[in-house]
Amino acid sequence: MENIKIFACPSAEGFTKEVCDCLNLEVGKMNSFKFKNDNNFVQILETVREKDVYIVQTSMPPVNERIMELLITVDAIKRASARRITVVLPYFMYSRSDKKDQPRVPVTAKLMAQIIEAAGVDRVLTCDLHNCAIQAYFNIGCHKLTAEYLLKKYFQEMNLKDMVVVATDAGSSKRAYKYSEFFKCPLALIDKRRVGNDDHAIAANIIGDVKDKTAVIFDDEVSTAGTLCEAAHILKDFGAGKIYAAATHGVLVGPAIERIEKSPIKELIITNTIPLEEEKKIKKIKVLSIAPLFAEAIKRLNEAKPLGDLFGFDR
Amino acid sequence: MENIKIFACPSAEGFTKEVCDCLNLEVGKMNSFKFKNDNNFVQILETVREKDVYIVQTSMPPVNERIMELLITVDAIKRASARRITVVLPYFMYSRSDKKDQPRVPVTAKLMAQIIEAAGVDRVLTCDLHNCAIQAYFNIGCHKLTAEYLLKKYFQEMNLKDMVVVATDAGSSKRAYKYSEFFKCPLALIDKRRVGNDDHAIAANIIGDVKDKTAVIFDDEVSTAGTLCEAAHILKDFGAGKIYAAATHGVLVGPAIERIEKSPIKELIITNTIPLEEEKKIKKIKVLSIAPLFAEAIKRLNEAKPLGDLFGFDR
Amino acid sequence: MENIKIFACPSAEGFTKEVCDCLNLEVGKMNSFKFKNDNNFVQILETVREKDVYIVQTSMPPVNERIMELLITVDAIKRASARRITVVLPYFMYSRSDKKDQPRVPVTAKLMAQIIEAAGVDRVLTCDLHNCAIQAYFNIGCHKLTAEYLLKKYFQEMNLKDMVVVATDAGSSKRAYKYSEFFKCPLALIDKRRVGNDDHAIAANIIGDVKDKTAVIFDDEVSTAGTLCEAAHILKDFGAGKIYAAATHGVLVGPAIERIEKSPIKELIITNTIPLEEEKKIKKIKVLSIAPLFAEAIKRLNEAKPLGDLFGFDR
Amino acid sequence: MENIKIFACPSAEGFTKEVCDCLNLEVGKMNSFKFKNDNNFVQILETVREKDVYIVQTSMPPVNERIMELLITVDAIKRASARRITVVLPYFMYSRSDKKDQPRVPVTAKLMAQIIEAAGVDRVLTCDLHNCAIQAYFNIGCHKLTAEYLLKKYFQEMNLKDMVVVATDAGSSKRAYKYSEFFKCPLALIDKRRVGNDDHAIAANIIGDVKDKTAVIFDDEVSTAGTLCEAAHILKDFGAGKIYAAATHGVLVGPAIERIEKSPIKELIITNTIPLEEEKKIKKIKVLSIAPLFAEAIKRLNEAKPLGDLFGFDR
Amino acid sequence: MENIKIFACPSAEGFTKEVCDCLNLEVGKMNSFKFKNDNNFVQILETVREKDVYIVQTSMPPVNERIMELLITVDAIKRASARRITVVLPYFMYSRSDKKDQPRVPVTAKLMAQIIEAAGVDRVLTCDLHNCAIQAYFNIGCHKLTAEYLLKKYFQEMNLKDMVVVATDAGSSKRAYKYSEFFKCPLALIDKRRVGNDDHAIAANIIGDVKDKTAVIFDDEVSTAGTLCEAAHILKDFGAGKIYAAATHGVLVGPAIERIEKSPIKELIITNTIPLEEEKKIKKIKVLSIAPLFAEAIKRLNEAKPLGDLFGFDR
Amino acid sequence: MENIKIFACPSAEGFTKEVCDCLNLEVGKMNSFKFKNDNNFVQILETVREKDVYIVQTSMPPVNERIMELLITVDAIKRASARRITVVLPYFMYSRSDKKDQPRVPVTAKLMAQIIEAAGVDRVLTCDLHNCAIQAYFNIGCHKLTAEYLLKKYFQEMNLKDMVVVATDAGSSKRAYKYSEFFKCPLALIDKRRVGNDDHAIAANIIGDVKDKTAVIFDDEVSTAGTLCEAAHILKDFGAGKIYAAATHGVLVGPAIERIEKSPIKELIITNTIPLEEEKKIKKIKVLSIAPLFAEAIKRLNEAKPLGDLFGFDR
Repeated sequence: MENIKIFACPSAEGFTKEVCDCLNLEVGKMNSFKFKNDNNFVQILETVREKDVYIVQTSMPPVNERIMELLITVDAIKRASARRITVVLPYFMYSRSDKKDQPRVPVTAKLMAQIIEAAGVDRVLTCDLHNCAIQAYFNIGCHKLTAEYLLKKYFQEMNLKDMVVVATDAGSSKRAYKYSEFFKCPLALIDKRRVGNDDHAIAANIIGDVKDKTAVIFDDEVSTAGTLCEAAHILKDFGAGKIYAAATHGVLVGPAIERIEKSPIKELIITNTIPLEEEKKIKKIKVLSIAPLFAEAIKRLNEAKPLGDLFGFDR
Repeated sequence: MENIKIFACPSAEGFTKEVCDCLNLEVGKMNSFKFKNDNNFVQILETVREKDVYIVQTSMPPVNERIMELLITVDAIKRASARRITVVLPYFMYSRSDKKDQPRVPVTAKLMAQIIEAAGVDRVLTCDLHNCAIQAYFNIGCHKLTAEYLLKKYFQEMNLKDMVVVATDAGSSKRAYKYSEFFKCPLALIDKRRVGNDDHAIAANIIGDVKDKTAVIFDDEVSTAGTLCEAAHILKDFGAGKIYAAATHGVLVGPAIERIEKSPIKELIITNTIPLEEEKKIKKIKVLSIAPLFAEAIKRLNEAKPLGDLFGFDR
Repeated sequence: MENIKIFACPSAEGFTKEVCDCLNLEVGKMNSFKFKNDNNFVQILETVREKDVYIVQTSMPPVNERIMELLITVDAIKRASARRITVVLPYFMYSRSDKKDQPRVPVTAKLMAQIIEAAGVDRVLTCDLHNCAIQAYFNIGCHKLTAEYLLKKYFQEMNLKDMVVVATDAGSSKRAYKYSEFFKCPLALIDKRRVGNDDHAIAANIIGDVKDKTAVIFDDEVSTAGTLCEAAHILKDFGAGKIYAAATHGVLVGPAIERIEKSPIKELIITNTIPLEEEKKIKKIKVLSIAPLFAEAIKRLNEAKPLGDLFGFDR
Repeated sequence: MENIKIFACPSAEGFTKEVCDCLNLEVGKMNSFKFKNDNNFVQILETVREKDVYIVQTSMPPVNERIMELLITVDAIKRASARRITVVLPYFMYSRSDKKDQPRVPVTAKLMAQIIEAAGVDRVLTCDLHNCAIQAYFNIGCHKLTAEYLLKKYFQEMNLKDMVVVATDAGSSKRAYKYSEFFKCPLALIDKRRVGNDDHAIAANIIGDVKDKTAVIFDDEVSTAGTLCEAAHILKDFGAGKIYAAATHGVLVGPAIERIEKSPIKELIITNTIPLEEEKKIKKIKVLSIAPLFAEAIKRLNEAKPLGDLFGFDR
Repeated sequence: MENIKIFACPSAEGFTKEVCDCLNLEVGKMNSFKFKNDNNFVQILETVREKDVYIVQTSMPPVNERIMELLITVDAIKRASARRITVVLPYFMYSRSDKKDQPRVPVTAKLMAQIIEAAGVDRVLTCDLHNCAIQAYFNIGCHKLTAEYLLKKYFQEMNLKDMVVVATDAGSSKRAYKYSEFFKCPLALIDKRRVGNDDHAIAANIIGDVKDKTAVIFDDEVSTAGTLCEAAHILKDFGAGKIYAAATHGVLVGPAIERIEKSPIKELIITNTIPLEEEKKIKKIKVLSIAPLFAEAIKRLNEAKPLGDLFGFDR
Repeated sequence: MENIKIFACPSAEGFTKEVCDCLNLEVGKMNSFKFKNDNNFVQILETVREKDVYIVQTSMPPVNERIMELLITVDAIKRASARRITVVLPYFMYSRSDKKDQPRVPVTAKLMAQIIEAAGVDRVLTCDLHNCAIQAYFNIGCHKLTAEYLLKKYFQEMNLKDMVVVATDAGSSKRAYKYSEFFKCPLALIDKRRVGNDDHAIAANIIGDVKDKTAVIFDDEVSTAGTLCEAAHILKDFGAGKIYAAATHGVLVGPAIERIEKSPIKELIITNTIPLEEEKKIKKIKVLSIAPLFAEAIKRLNEAKPLGDLFGFDR
């Protein structure tokens, strides 16, 4: 491991420390700050010449700051003659802007790939992408880990009775199906749609049976928790018993925390791909650490061993 | 339109003629053949210098021949100093190999983008991609038309009673949902899964109600028709009434025709993005021509007008 | 001009409106906002197919937001098939990070060029770069206008007596020399240096004569105004009469306004390459509009006429 | 050699096995097949991370299938993080389409170089190119071995009396000259040309003396054997004694075998750069194995030793 | 033609003037000189913004100066925002370094293509390349004219009796064959080779009949005239009558003029692709102007008409 | 060090030998010459496969020859499969053409970066660039050493009394300031300007005090020595005592030597980044060897150690 150096962009210091601890490595020393003119600056404080460098960054808002911090750090390390630069993005920023589904809009996830490559990155290590195809937006290698094992294990240990996996909408039913197959339990699908010509009159239905069952919703991320909490209320209306939710990425912005608090969700399980601010740490939210998985991946990359079994359903 | 030249790779001559007829253009003259050593050759028989050239190719098997024919034609036209080369692919070959979902497999849809760009193509015009993200695999422009309007109009005119849109599996439920919303009809989802530890014992269930209803299945393509016909049988078992199916791309390979003939499907509606061989023309299959839509797109591209409303749900 | 479309990123709306007014053009319609997850989004509201598009962005803090807004807008317009994209940056962000003058630091100005190119920009139009060499950081064309003419004209009209141009440090003496040559007046140079081994003990000297003269300081930008105001105090100490300062870019961050207010500077002349926030509009600061110069440049680019005489000393 | 992995595309399994046997290596494990929709698929069955990978492919018709198989395998191995990918093409497909000698035709050999590079190949190892310049069509390294030594040795051991090397046309006289110089024997040149204005009336002449001599024709490849067998008949007409022919590549398509059988050629010596199908194995054709030469080249590449002496006349 | 600007690098002024005269255009104004530190400098003296620019350069020694003059002129014109830059190279420098025929040598013709592209050239127009494959060394368009028509017409008008076309060595017999076919006359081939083990003992033979015939040698270029004059002497020895030689490019370096003077060659016909210095203008050398052909090519490129019939044998 | 090979382009043999001696390495064997047609050729005479190759070239006029020699050598070594190619340019040719300061002129320093990269170079090692920004013209790594330490040490050992550092014009005052700060001595600035409307009437002034002092002028290079010697005369006129000058690069072209001889400069100190021809070796010029610094840099690059402290003021 002596040829490896792992650096943390400012918002990723905690996560990086956890990863490094698993690997018995020190976090690389760098100095990162803003000049008064709001320009970021970074200086790498130890030699990286010919080293295999990893740079970790999270998507803690402000997101655009995080992106520029990352690119500027990459530039500094590239100019310092690192042998290879791997960017570690536990959450891939702008992964939801993954396709052109309206006229004259950006595909920012592809733009991300382009500017990350333009900055001189050799490889990307990320986790549970909103759309697997993002991997192939890169011409460089992009490895995608998954939080699936953590979530499966967590629910296995809970040993829930009468479990049903619920897809909150048609777009997420494939994931729901896979989990339902894993847990050998039924599947249900929430079907909301406009009524008549009124855009705001929405009728909700549940396709499949949830009555008195323990409903579990799996998602890749929870952002404003709008869809999730609405689904929980509908489930409650349709007679579901306990309601659990689980997601890899706890984006948790805007009214998310308040909504979750008020919702019939018993527990929301997320991982620490995005640092959870202190004020968002509520009892209902359980955070699992995915740092050991990243450490394992880095270890295997270093030993030139396969990562495949870390990739989950989409292995 | 005088600056435009449209050429047809061999398998695409019929489709291209249709497009050109809509535009009052002659199909460009070229000579395409194989040498005895199985090497393809092409000679463009009219000047294309400074022209805005379109090259149409279908995915009629053998698919790899089609790809090399296309690339070689592009090379000839590029070296003949065309101003811009747009490749028209009514069906994007290898669009199902769109992500790395197992260890050490290719993402051939991305490879396609890479070699199409490497050959010197400036722009791609295609239709109903298996994964929208394929558009962003290109660094050049990639416009995607849709057969949605044709299919919607066809079913609107049929004015079916008690219609239910059925998703054949969880992965296709998003599309099914959108159609069900358009037709203001219910949605059902077929849920097949392994029973116990035996990989071959599959139990089928239907989530949602299909009893005595007219079931319609929408898909992007019908390939071996395995999933489709199995779904039709399950629907029948669960008491559905008439069963229709519709898809943009009639790939229809292997046992597809036989399966469709034997299935309870009343009619399968496809478009001519892939030429339907004579022996596959059976009564149950209805082919709608999408050539006018491509003609319209080319006309608008030439007049620098927006294409957006030709893009469908994913506009 | 009908083939031209000019769009304004959010912070640049005022400036862009001014430019468009000079050209009798409407500002292009677009919708730009942030999702709750802090992800930027933009939708272009009119067709740009085959258009010659200009996108204007300023460097109003937060700077990194500005950069990402710009790149995302470029992506949307590129995917909407513009014929050519020219980015208009009255102030080139990160232009002070123009070289690697310490070990393991970034050259962010070069990174900017790389990501701007990676996003698909065809041409850059900017103004008074901190280092002319930044133009050649681009592989695409980069045109650089200057505020020189505005500043020269302003001071010519003031018709100052006993003028001396003062360089605030050795690095800016070339610019000072050129202005002194233009105004046919003497040159002076402030020489500050550490005394003994104490890093904080600074002794100031003035090389050249400023006693009872009207001192004018020219700079490319005023950021925190630290160097500038310190120079003004030293000039006062050495007996200078009235003190004027002029710069193209009024970055004016941190304590800048307070420092200027308290300094012996009589007037600071800047241009509107960076929008001046209301609370920074103080009497001592005079803002000249450079929008007509940008309008003139765009007009000439459109008419394929030379720009050379708009380039100033570094033409 | 432990860092090396050699994979065989399907048609190249025999040849690759031979090469691997020389190197005491196992052929890499991969699974390659076609889906029913005629789309190729490949899965690499052992880890190649950080390995120095060689992928062998032949040009067995259908040629275009071979090319796509190759590119798809490269894609899979690239995405599996190989350190370096060397493509081994004993016969370089489309090598005869090496220049633009008519208006508006492709230069498919250059296209091959472009798509091979686009797929992510780092290095090419091939043999006896139709035009040496093809090496420089690549921006990546392209090493070219030769079968010359095998052929020279074979004829030296035959110890032919009164040998004359015959060029079948002006275009091949340079090669003929080099062999004639090597064997210290005379050279003759067949001169066929149209008579009068009739395109089909061809008159044949031989420049140089072949009467009662043992004529040997050397070529880079024998494709339909048309030129070769016609030359043999002319030689016979002009009184030549025994007639031998030798070529690196036994393409042997169309009527080749029948023509050779019926021709006065006593023996045709080729190598196994292209697998000879069972039905083409006739007594007159002698196949020399060039696999040991490829093994030697791979061994030297691995040991960072020069290949130069394996390159023959064009070393 | 008003959108066209043609510039001449210093050594090409005469040739460019001839081309421009044919097109009724003025040669573009530029200033080209060397600083005292031997650095070249160029300034373009008229606007080229959005123009279709041609830059002509010859290969007059010193060749490397010519190349750098060319690249620097291209850089200036690219930065001055030309719409398209076509480089006109009547003789393609380093065209004889077209392949790697020894270990560890350069392929300078490919390097030329790389640096010409790197400088920002869009298209190349050249003439009679030593190896046609050089065209495909470029990723940009490369059009190749030929002097064939001039030479054929010249010899047709001479109406020589008993003409035989002679190839000076095996490598040039293809060209000789094509001319012999055109003139419907016989072909002969000079065969020189080492005798025994002594490298310097060369025995010459002529394959074919030249006795009392008018021998004509066609070549692409005459450099030191060594091979050519030696061939003429051998022809004389073997009883040839009058001896003519013709070549596109009169490189004519070192002892060329002296050798030609002393040789039995009656006349050498060349074209002005390379300017012939005054002291090399001897009676035996006849120079045909190829400038009208280049003018015609530029005219057709401008009118988007085919060039094919200007390409000769290798059309 | 066994993986390193250092080659010298012809003009750099002396310097390279010095560097190699410091490293106990042999200079790599290569054969470099010109064909009679003025085309350069090079053959590398020892294997470089997988080696870490350094190629040294100086800027000895003719400069353009030096550049082409370098690129051709790079091409040969790249094709010989070196693992990495580092170009060592003690003086970076065309470094003064570093920006576009007039309309329609080249930025030849950027062109240099482009063609060096296009040739396949991986890394550049150079010294004291005229403009630091040239480093960032490269997309590959570019390390810049400095002669500062040699010059500082030389003057420290001289222990001059009453020293004043003099900037010859405003553009060089930053460097002068840094040296004055290092030597803790005053700074003076020569101010020349046109008088009235006559371009040739120049009035000289000195800003700062030089009377009876020992004046030292530091520059990056001395080319024609015009500015330097004029400055020395002005200094003399203004009463300066002894006058010294120092520069990294002794370009010394045209009248330089004569001017220096006639000037009041007591000694000019330069380094051997450019070989000093015998006839230019005059007593007043002292040459310090910078070869050990380059050797140290190569040693550290090889050991993956930081170079930062070799970079001087601009570290």
